[in-house]
Amino acid sequence: MKLYDYAASANCYKVRLLLAQLSAEYERVPVDIFGGDTLTEEFAAINPGRTTPVLEDPPGTFLQESNAILLHLGRGTPFLPDDPQVYRWLFYEQADVVPTMGGLRFRLITGRLAPDDAESLRRRAASYEVLELLDAHLAAREFFVGGRYSVADIGIYGYVHVAGEAGLDLQPYPALRAWLERVQSQPGYVNDLEPYPPNSRVGASRSIYD
Amino acid sequence: MKLYDYAASANCYKVRLLLAQLSAEYERVPVDIFGGDTLTEEFAAINPGRTTPVLEDPPGTFLQESNAILLHLGRGTPFLPDDPQVYRWLFYEQADVVPTMGGLRFRLITGRLAPDDAESLRRRAASYEVLELLDAHLAAREFFVGGRYSVADIGIYGYVHVAGEAGLDLQPYPALRAWLERVQSQPGYVNDLEPYPPNSRVGASRSIYD
Repeated sequence: MKLYDYAASANCYKVRLLLAQLSAEYERVPVDIFGGDTLTEEFAAINPGRTTPVLEDPPGTFLQESNAILLHLGRGTPFLPDDPQVYRWLFYEQADVVPTMGGLRFRLITGRLAPDDAESLRRRAASYEVLELLDAHLAAREFFVGGRYSVADIGIYGYVHVAGEAGLDLQPYPALRAWLERVQSQPGYVNDLEPYPPNSRVGASRSIYD
Repeated sequence: MKLYDYAASANCYKVRLLLAQLSAEYERVPVDIFGGDTLTEEFAAINPGRTTPVLEDPPGTFLQESNAILLHLGRGTPFLPDDPQVYRWLFYEQADVVPTMGGLRFRLITGRLAPDDAESLRRRAASYEVLELLDAHLAAREFFVGGRYSVADIGIYGYVHVAGEAGLDLQPYPALRAWLERVQSQPGYVNDLEPYPPNSRVGASRSIYD
């Protein structure tokens, strides 16, 4: 099993977290997404969408989209309960968490947006709506689905746990903060998400984000 | 089984299409999303994200997110093959198809964007990248996953089949156009997607999109 992987991507980190908790053996294939690695013909054959992560399992069979990988790896394990709410939260994550706080964090840290740009303000307001929804859901729940830790939590944790780096204040969301700590106390928890490197800066980057 | 439903939403139409092909009986509960129906406390209890569709099945149990509903309803039927590529395409649809051609079509038709706005040009360029990727995938395939019609096709069909209404030209994508026709020739195919009504116009609308 190979993971085409970027150390500073929270979408990739989600998969690494589940793999660690499954004690799965795999080979990490580093993809320098800001150094042009996803713009090659070779990478297009692995993922024409030119995103990471991609799981190769078995050799020659590629699975794209972080949350699709979570569902695939989680199958038959305690991390994937038999409840369609898991799907609901993973789709919500890609449609509402990633473009708001995930996209805002990336653009602020790498100089693609300034904090007072209209686009930043729009994404910040939308991020707070998402944080409020998540906090309300967790007010009477330990985890997102079925009372136990699952791939739904892993998916949402990816970008939410670094929302502060998007300039967002998590103080008003006590249930969400308690949940972050519960995730961090799970057996096998790891956090190897790295900071964005210098070549991710606007102007220095050669990627699909330019 | 109840479907909280909006006639002019392609996300809702995707679910109606699968339900028709499953010959499932259900009650449609119309939600006037531009008339303020999703802004109520009652609707927030059904979906705090204030989007449609929502499936109620069994009574009192609500499932949000169109593609989560497709996966849930497809389970145990020929429409959900045992292949994680189904997940891949459904996540891709929400992350890349909806914000590009889906969002562009909505904003142009309802006056939220003009064709030459920078945001329109950005979404148009991104839409063509998605159409090219979809067309390339279908060049040697009849359907998106596993050589047969599945919920992956239904998901992608929703906004792609009305891409022309976003001012996008499908002529350069023969494999995609042939696939649209294959979808339309499936047993039980229906198309009851309605045009956006007058109250969806910017200024006339009271919704989460204002």
